[in-house]
Amino acid sequence: MLKVIVLGSGNVGSHLVNLFNNSSQIDLVQWYSRSQITHKKTEVINNIDLLKEADIYILCVSDNAIKELSDKLTFKNKLVVHTSGSTPFQEISKQNKRGVFYPLQTFSKTKELDYTRIPICVESENKEDLEFLKKLCDKINCKYYEIDFEQRKTLHLAAVISNNFTNYLFGLSKKIMLDKNLDFEILKPLINETVNKIHKLDPIESQTGPARRNDQNIIDMHVKMLENKEHRNLYKIFSQMIKNIYDN
Amino acid sequence: MLKVIVLGSGNVGSHLVNLFNNSSQIDLVQWYSRSQITHKKTEVINNIDLLKEADIYILCVSDNAIKELSDKLTFKNKLVVHTSGSTPFQEISKQNKRGVFYPLQTFSKTKELDYTRIPICVESENKEDLEFLKKLCDKINCKYYEIDFEQRKTLHLAAVISNNFTNYLFGLSKKIMLDKNLDFEILKPLINETVNKIHKLDPIESQTGPARRNDQNIIDMHVKMLENKEHRNLYKIFSQMIKNIYDN
Repeated sequence: MLKVIVLGSGNVGSHLVNLFNNSSQIDLVQWYSRSQITHKKTEVINNIDLLKEADIYILCVSDNAIKELSDKLTFKNKLVVHTSGSTPFQEISKQNKRGVFYPLQTFSKTKELDYTRIPICVESENKEDLEFLKKLCDKINCKYYEIDFEQRKTLHLAAVISNNFTNYLFGLSKKIMLDKNLDFEILKPLINETVNKIHKLDPIESQTGPARRNDQNIIDMHVKMLENKEHRNLYKIFSQMIKNIYDN
Repeated sequence: MLKVIVLGSGNVGSHLVNLFNNSSQIDLVQWYSRSQITHKKTEVINNIDLLKEADIYILCVSDNAIKELSDKLTFKNKLVVHTSGSTPFQEISKQNKRGVFYPLQTFSKTKELDYTRIPICVESENKEDLEFLKKLCDKINCKYYEIDFEQRKTLHLAAVISNNFTNYLFGLSKKIMLDKNLDFEILKPLINETVNKIHKLDPIESQTGPARRNDQNIIDMHVKMLENKEHRNLYKIFSQMIKNIYDN
């Protein structure tokens, strides 16, 4: 049994706790949270001095809290990792052995994820710890990738673009439809297919739409239809960028 | 058996032909195409004067070709529909009974679609033709929506935003990753989950990421990492729009 302690109860921490609890090969020893929470399966503590012995301590806190929290840890020479896409492991206090355990997934507290094969980016100061991190991924049925800091930052950037910005566009589409009394449900099969396509076709080759076929009449009409200046600007920018790719 | 003729062999026409061929309750009488194509199940013609009798003629051509093609039809008082999201049915020559059969789906020729429950927006000049259009949707197991021109235009706009622009972001993410020797595969589970979420959560409420939590350090770092000026601009615009929503 791998003995794990999770620190932090935000989106990532909460989901990792569930993930570890679902594995019969992981002993989730404790969950440290500053806020008052309870958990039916795991001992929750809010006093950091009560931390017990474990094989790994996973800091699931915001980027700028990693240093402070790791400085507060009273033990030495244990494996301590953070879960940030944009922070080097050196941000963790060097009194411990340091690493990264960055799950590349979008975590909303209110939705249960299907955890199958979440990619987890692992990195460590010492080679032997890397083997431990890979084993940990295996035990929770996740796929690991050895990724260094530069790559991890790039991955995080790509994730923001393809996840956060995409989600914004879904929200914007929904708003535009609701304003005209159209049910967002109508659009969902199209959105599903948009994503299904990436598994079979290159997104750059499979691009469709008015900008792809340089249909300026439709582009102009759509821009006029948008009531918000920022949305008009966004539509124009996207259309121009798409046209730039396919004009060449 | 409903007798159907498809005119046009672009993405929409090609997919509709497959769709009708797969239904035992549809007789796809002919497929008109200006380009030289063959089809193992359907008679293909490229001379419009050879069009036979059918219950419906479906014009799957670009918006600006609808008028010209419909003017060339030599018969009268038949049901003729187009498949455009942004064109009124009045664009079709009035010597025939006019309507719209707009499938809200993204069609790439090279990918076989799972056609189950594609939403089809129907509209017609005469009430009895609307019933026929609904029946046609039923026979091919598609879901129909009675949508007027104003709504259809809005739907098309929302589709461009949530499908075409989203696909552009997937392509951009892929490019950013390839430039750093990262496999786009790593990102696909995240993209899947981004879309799965829309079925369970409101996209505006489930927004995550640096802009959502107003993490200016990450935003600045990501902007710096982008080598292309347009991409930097796009990142800034998205971040600002997301911040604007959640600052309030």
